[in-house]
Amino acid sequence: MRIDILTVVPELLVSPLNESILKRAQRAGLVEIVVHNIRDWATDKHRHVDDYPFGGEAGMVMKPEPVFRLISHLQSERRYDEVIFTTPDGMQYDQREANRLSTLGNIIILCGHYKGLDHRIREHLVTREISIGDYVLTGGELAAAVIADSVVRLLPGAIGDEESALTDSFQDGLLAPPVYTRPAEFNGWAVPEVLLSGHDARIEEWKEEQALERTRRLRPDLLEKWED
Amino acid sequence: MRIDILTVVPELLVSPLNESILKRAQRAGLVEIVVHNIRDWATDKHRHVDDYPFGGEAGMVMKPEPVFRLISHLQSERRYDEVIFTTPDGMQYDQREANRLSTLGNIIILCGHYKGLDHRIREHLVTREISIGDYVLTGGELAAAVIADSVVRLLPGAIGDEESALTDSFQDGLLAPPVYTRPAEFNGWAVPEVLLSGHDARIEEWKEEQALERTRRLRPDLLEKWED
Repeated sequence: MRIDILTVVPELLVSPLNESILKRAQRAGLVEIVVHNIRDWATDKHRHVDDYPFGGEAGMVMKPEPVFRLISHLQSERRYDEVIFTTPDGMQYDQREANRLSTLGNIIILCGHYKGLDHRIREHLVTREISIGDYVLTGGELAAAVIADSVVRLLPGAIGDEESALTDSFQDGLLAPPVYTRPAEFNGWAVPEVLLSGHDARIEEWKEEQALERTRRLRPDLLEKWED
Repeated sequence: MRIDILTVVPELLVSPLNESILKRAQRAGLVEIVVHNIRDWATDKHRHVDDYPFGGEAGMVMKPEPVFRLISHLQSERRYDEVIFTTPDGMQYDQREANRLSTLGNIIILCGHYKGLDHRIREHLVTREISIGDYVLTGGELAAAVIADSVVRLLPGAIGDEESALTDSFQDGLLAPPVYTRPAEFNGWAVPEVLLSGHDARIEEWKEEQALERTRRLRPDLLEKWED
């Protein structure tokens, strides 16, 4: 898989992309992540990537030309399955979309910044607008890092069997049950007895009950979605 | 405001916290962000922060002692308004919660990692469990960066007037209208004529219509929430 991330603040992405699982997956050859500075594709000598909005809105708007030139260049080199734009008014990102993206070959993630991106790029070049949640960030860089992390960890071989993504929250439509480790008693707080029983069937049953109870109490909407 | 971030992978947070708005806001004295390595609070000589789960779940679990020691130490130094744990089964983070957090004095953000955190810490020390979205990340570090960014940009003085957060998506319950900048025609694609008219009242009306139309089409659930 190849992920091209297009940004006006590439330095924001240095540590998220070069540590932990994204580092390991790149080293293992599972994914190639290439960060592009949109400023390198500016057309004027001052390398402007933003300009005042038409109609007197507050804030600056990302100019269409540099982004257009960069995306056109990338698309001349290979076929992309999606050109994603990270924006709070995009579709709500979820585990289902992460699963889908993890099956693709090449994707572009274009990070929004400033007050927004000239809408013509969104209409004509972007194929998928994604929001990681109902809140506003300074830029789309953290959203791009979130998408990259959630997708790459699903690639076969990215995480060890023992941390299998299949038992994560959402993969079966339920929240994960509580987890405990040693010591069995800490600060007067005990681990649920069943987990110490060594009784596999009873433990499995307890986990299923907990997952269902927690989902029902904390996120009943997930159960409705799952029943659909 | 002071934000203490507790993590087992502090190197992941270096560039998100030291660039862009978070850098400027820290330099301006609007916020102090302190990252703590949970490993420094481990009790054994190998500085273990994780251990096998009771009941044979796949993956490793964050041990309770190091986290407990670190949080107790911080709480002995100052009063914290919230001890936040980032986890996919937490409450769904949104702009309303970002607004609320931005009014607090001191907060702790504890990043989950591995398969999860010993549940006793969640029950007894954590006051708020937050999910930034319905997807699974390798760790809570990106979630902590998202929370920090979305909160700090709301602090008075963090962003310039000209990028006022008040016109962002969600602040009035609506998605933002499309934005455009020069050139008025690019690649055969024109900017909507009304934006070039110089007619302030008509432009304002167009923006409101667009915001409402886009919200109705893309996120009708936001309108329902707003009407409540």
